[in-house]
Amino acid sequence: MNIRPLGDRVVIKKLEAESTTKSGIVLTGTAKEQPQEAKVMAVGPGAVVDGKRVEMDVKVGDKILYSKYAGTDVKVAGEEYIILRQDDILAIVE
Amino acid sequence: MNIRPLGDRVVIKKLEAESTTKSGIVLTGTAKEQPQEAKVMAVGPGAVVDGKRVEMDVKVGDKILYSKYAGTDVKVAGEEYIILRQDDILAIVE
Amino acid sequence: MNIRPLGDRVVIKKLEAESTTKSGIVLTGTAKEQPQEAKVMAVGPGAVVDGKRVEMDVKVGDKILYSKYAGTDVKVAGEEYIILRQDDILAIVE
Amino acid sequence: MNIRPLGDRVVIKKLEAESTTKSGIVLTGTAKEQPQEAKVMAVGPGAVVDGKRVEMDVKVGDKILYSKYAGTDVKVAGEEYIILRQDDILAIVE
Amino acid sequence: MNIRPLGDRVVIKKLEAESTTKSGIVLTGTAKEQPQEAKVMAVGPGAVVDGKRVEMDVKVGDKILYSKYAGTDVKVAGEEYIILRQDDILAIVE
Amino acid sequence: MNIRPLGDRVVIKKLEAESTTKSGIVLTGTAKEQPQEAKVMAVGPGAVVDGKRVEMDVKVGDKILYSKYAGTDVKVAGEEYIILRQDDILAIVE
Amino acid sequence: MNIRPLGDRVVIKKLEAESTTKSGIVLTGTAKEQPQEAKVMAVGPGAVVDGKRVEMDVKVGDKILYSKYAGTDVKVAGEEYIILRQDDILAIVE
Repeated sequence: MNIRPLGDRVVIKKLEAESTTKSGIVLTGTAKEQPQEAKVMAVGPGAVVDGKRVEMDVKVGDKILYSKYAGTDVKVAGEEYIILRQDDILAIVE
Repeated sequence: MNIRPLGDRVVIKKLEAESTTKSGIVLTGTAKEQPQEAKVMAVGPGAVVDGKRVEMDVKVGDKILYSKYAGTDVKVAGEEYIILRQDDILAIVE
Repeated sequence: MNIRPLGDRVVIKKLEAESTTKSGIVLTGTAKEQPQEAKVMAVGPGAVVDGKRVEMDVKVGDKILYSKYAGTDVKVAGEEYIILRQDDILAIVE
Repeated sequence: MNIRPLGDRVVIKKLEAESTTKSGIVLTGTAKEQPQEAKVMAVGPGAVVDGKRVEMDVKVGDKILYSKYAGTDVKVAGEEYIILRQDDILAIVE
Repeated sequence: MNIRPLGDRVVIKKLEAESTTKSGIVLTGTAKEQPQEAKVMAVGPGAVVDGKRVEMDVKVGDKILYSKYAGTDVKVAGEEYIILRQDDILAIVE
Repeated sequence: MNIRPLGDRVVIKKLEAESTTKSGIVLTGTAKEQPQEAKVMAVGPGAVVDGKRVEMDVKVGDKILYSKYAGTDVKVAGEEYIILRQDDILAIVE
Repeated sequence: MNIRPLGDRVVIKKLEAESTTKSGIVLTGTAKEQPQEAKVMAVGPGAVVDGKRVEMDVKVGDKILYSKYAGTDVKVAGEEYIILRQDDILAIVE
């Protein structure tokens, strides 16, 4: 991906709950109620505080939970992403 | 549990007031009016202030009281949790 | 009492104006207009500012005046308390 | 008076414009339009900034002008006072 | 005048545009549209920042322009004044 | 001009788009759509941060672009000016 | 271009999605849904924090994504630009 976020920003891609299992069964209802999961696609260099870069806590590939109303939706090369500040990332799901 | 909160965030699980006693008697009314108790499930590494991690005051397993409207509800693997900042935790109940 | 407040928080218990005197006379009106008096039940360790704990100004047992709309009502073991930040305590009544 | 304000707070007592002169003449109208004058009854120890107490600028007995909507009305032992932060005191009238 | 402002506050007195010239001609309209001019009557000792007084930029007698909605109107000894923070003074007119 | 702005304030004079060319042709429409251009008439000494004056970036005579709703309109000696903080100046036009 | 932004401001020019391909085919719909892309036209010297200039992260020519409602529209010499703070730039598109 060719988006390089500035400061403490992170580019994420929303994860759709897989609604079809490998065997082809379509899952509905509760299984889809996970709107806040996303995958980290790009990580900024970190904010500058008192002249020093603050190291980022997430890395590309992390699966994360984020604040529902945080960030800005952007569309680059036909793909939809969300750019938010790391502070709007709640937790890493392992 | 596989959620790793960032910064000074804490993952908690709401405690339902036990409405049934060991002997099977169903309690109602006042006994259930404790909506703000929760158990700490995961604790972040602490916020970074002036380049240093601030140690967290709660630990996994603590029973806590929290601000009713604080935090974000998340659902991971079918379980409901709340992720909030430690500052929204009012007190530890011992 | 088994509530341990975090940071600069204080647990207080509202003082009802004693509406009955020792001799049994029921007082009404003005004598009851003191909704902001409370007794300190538990005191947090103090906020951490620049890595150091700031010592608290109130102690358990102090009778205090507090901002009417400050704090959070909690109910622990059937008893009602208010948890507020020390900054919402206006004065100590001696 | 037995109220000891915390931090940079001050306890004041509103001054009613004397509506009767020594000779007994009742003054009305403009002579009463001074709702913001008060007398300082008690002074807190001062706010703590970076670990040091900031000395207070007013002292008990000062006659002051204050911001009309500042502070909290309290009633102690039947007397009405206002508790406000020193920053809400505009000036000392000499 | 006997008002001593606190901190970085300044006591000013609104200047009415002189509507009569020396020769007795009454000016009207545009000549009166100067509602923001005032004269400095008293100057506070300056705000305390990091334990040091910040020197004030205006002095008694300065003619100034101020933000229309800034400050508090007070009436002392029958005279009307405005008490505002120096930061609400826009400029000195020379 | 006899206005001396305080702190980081700047006195500017709105530039009317010249609606008449040298040859006397009256321009209309788009040519007049430049409401945010102004000329710097006076510059304050700069804000004081941590006891030191911060040097100003604009100087008298600069043609600037400013935030449309920033600043205060003042009228001195029949002339209209705007007093705003330097931070509300967007750019210098060269 | 002759606009020199102050502090941490950046002058950008909105990029219209090219709606006509080289072969002359007019693209419609999704291909035009990229309202937040712009090209950096001029970069300020950087904000001053504690007496030191903070170096800017973008440079003239960068293609960037920006917050939709950020910045101020200006028109210089018939051309439309947006002046915004670097903090309102989300990412650089490479």
